[in-house]
Amino acid sequence: MIINSLKSVKSFDGHTKYFEHASNLTKTTMKFSTFIPGKKKVKNAIIWLSGLTCTEENFITKSGVQKLLADTDTMIICPDTSPRGLELTNEHDSYDFGSGAGFYINATTDGYRDHYKMYDYIFEEITEILHNNFDIQNISIMGHSMGGHGALILGLKEKELYKAISAFSPITNPINCPWGQKAFKGYFGEQAQELALANDATEILRKGRATRNCILIEQGLDDEFLKEQLLTENFENICKEVGQELKVNYREGYDHSYFFIATYLEEHVQFHLEAFKEVQD
Amino acid sequence: MIINSLKSVKSFDGHTKYFEHASNLTKTTMKFSTFIPGKKKVKNAIIWLSGLTCTEENFITKSGVQKLLADTDTMIICPDTSPRGLELTNEHDSYDFGSGAGFYINATTDGYRDHYKMYDYIFEEITEILHNNFDIQNISIMGHSMGGHGALILGLKEKELYKAISAFSPITNPINCPWGQKAFKGYFGEQAQELALANDATEILRKGRATRNCILIEQGLDDEFLKEQLLTENFENICKEVGQELKVNYREGYDHSYFFIATYLEEHVQFHLEAFKEVQD
Repeated sequence: MIINSLKSVKSFDGHTKYFEHASNLTKTTMKFSTFIPGKKKVKNAIIWLSGLTCTEENFITKSGVQKLLADTDTMIICPDTSPRGLELTNEHDSYDFGSGAGFYINATTDGYRDHYKMYDYIFEEITEILHNNFDIQNISIMGHSMGGHGALILGLKEKELYKAISAFSPITNPINCPWGQKAFKGYFGEQAQELALANDATEILRKGRATRNCILIEQGLDDEFLKEQLLTENFENICKEVGQELKVNYREGYDHSYFFIATYLEEHVQFHLEAFKEVQD
Repeated sequence: MIINSLKSVKSFDGHTKYFEHASNLTKTTMKFSTFIPGKKKVKNAIIWLSGLTCTEENFITKSGVQKLLADTDTMIICPDTSPRGLELTNEHDSYDFGSGAGFYINATTDGYRDHYKMYDYIFEEITEILHNNFDIQNISIMGHSMGGHGALILGLKEKELYKAISAFSPITNPINCPWGQKAFKGYFGEQAQELALANDATEILRKGRATRNCILIEQGLDDEFLKEQLLTENFENICKEVGQELKVNYREGYDHSYFFIATYLEEHVQFHLEAFKEVQD
């Protein structure tokens, strides 16, 4: 695929880079950012999926990930959270639907179905870019909040592709929380219960799509969204029920912000590096 | 002084905090951010002065400083770069003068002299806040670009107060570069050569105000502003001339951005921690 470099900034002996490309799936220009370490030949990639209102910029400027990957053979790629530059009905009216809120699913409703194919965009085009443009062998996936939901559903449904799954403060059971209900209604319509179930991490596990690998979740106990939107307990329960190995680190005093992500990112990066090491051994 | 907490977010076992207070010097409400480590009693503070267009937010969200200070007895404080909420003549017309561009000097021109007292604001009020509100014993100073200029002039002129001086990509000789000439003309007027000289790091050293301590400077060689605006060579020459110890690390391929700062911040933090250790021993 043709990708155009927008900016390349030396960081930690590697390069923080921004790209754009024409997407066949969203039929828009899509942007993403990367950090590519400079000391070793890069073989692995972690995909970072951001949360509501974010773009390809938030994680790469705020997380401190460059320092953590500088000495490794692993890059990170941060896609945008939705198509841009469109004028669909209700697309720009609220922070939790439409632009900046693609939810990593393939929409079926009028207008949206032609562009909001964020599941396929991550699973197909980002994979193609990683393989063909960056010569990557192994891929894993993590994300935050809405992006944590994306990492869980993509990771569980495409478990052959993604070598590790982890999430910060993920929306774990979207059919039962206001954010998820609004998004699924807008992208799938009122009656699409089956599609909703197929894009809900808790329900995916209920159908027996567990992975052999442990899933790692980081969750702040002062996160204002924990009880109404994230529903981590529902995910823990279904993991127990179906025998999915899961490690949830509840962190006292931490909230939903990038400061929380930065604090515990090193452990998640290590978790992904270990998974790549196992694949390579 | 009364300072109001605006936000407190747990990070790396400490807290990233935002405050505001009524300033007697700028006669406006001033904001600053801090990171206060949580593992040891905090005794020392590094002041971070930001560059053009920045606020109290840029460094604390982008630099990764929390990870570097988490296990120490040293906090960081990041003041805003100018007074806010005013409507002075030409104040909001350009990125390099007025709001977001206070240059850490005390203005003498009409209107500005009543509010743009950023030198005294840092030297007097930030010091008072650190001593009285945060119970700090030792203070040092660093900054970036315009803030590097601020760190150099404050550090050299108030060498009893600041235990260490360092800078990323500083404007080292403002009277000889466009940014400095424009700012000094706007804040001091056309004829105030003496004031300009007294607020230029290179000229301060020429007058024999060297400090016993080594000054540390980090400078990217792909910095687009190096030759026209920063004039690092002029500063190196005067340091040699007057016997000021100086370490300039030129870094190949690095630019003027926060990615550069993040890459080498650890060495600067270590430099400041060493200086505090010497004072305490």
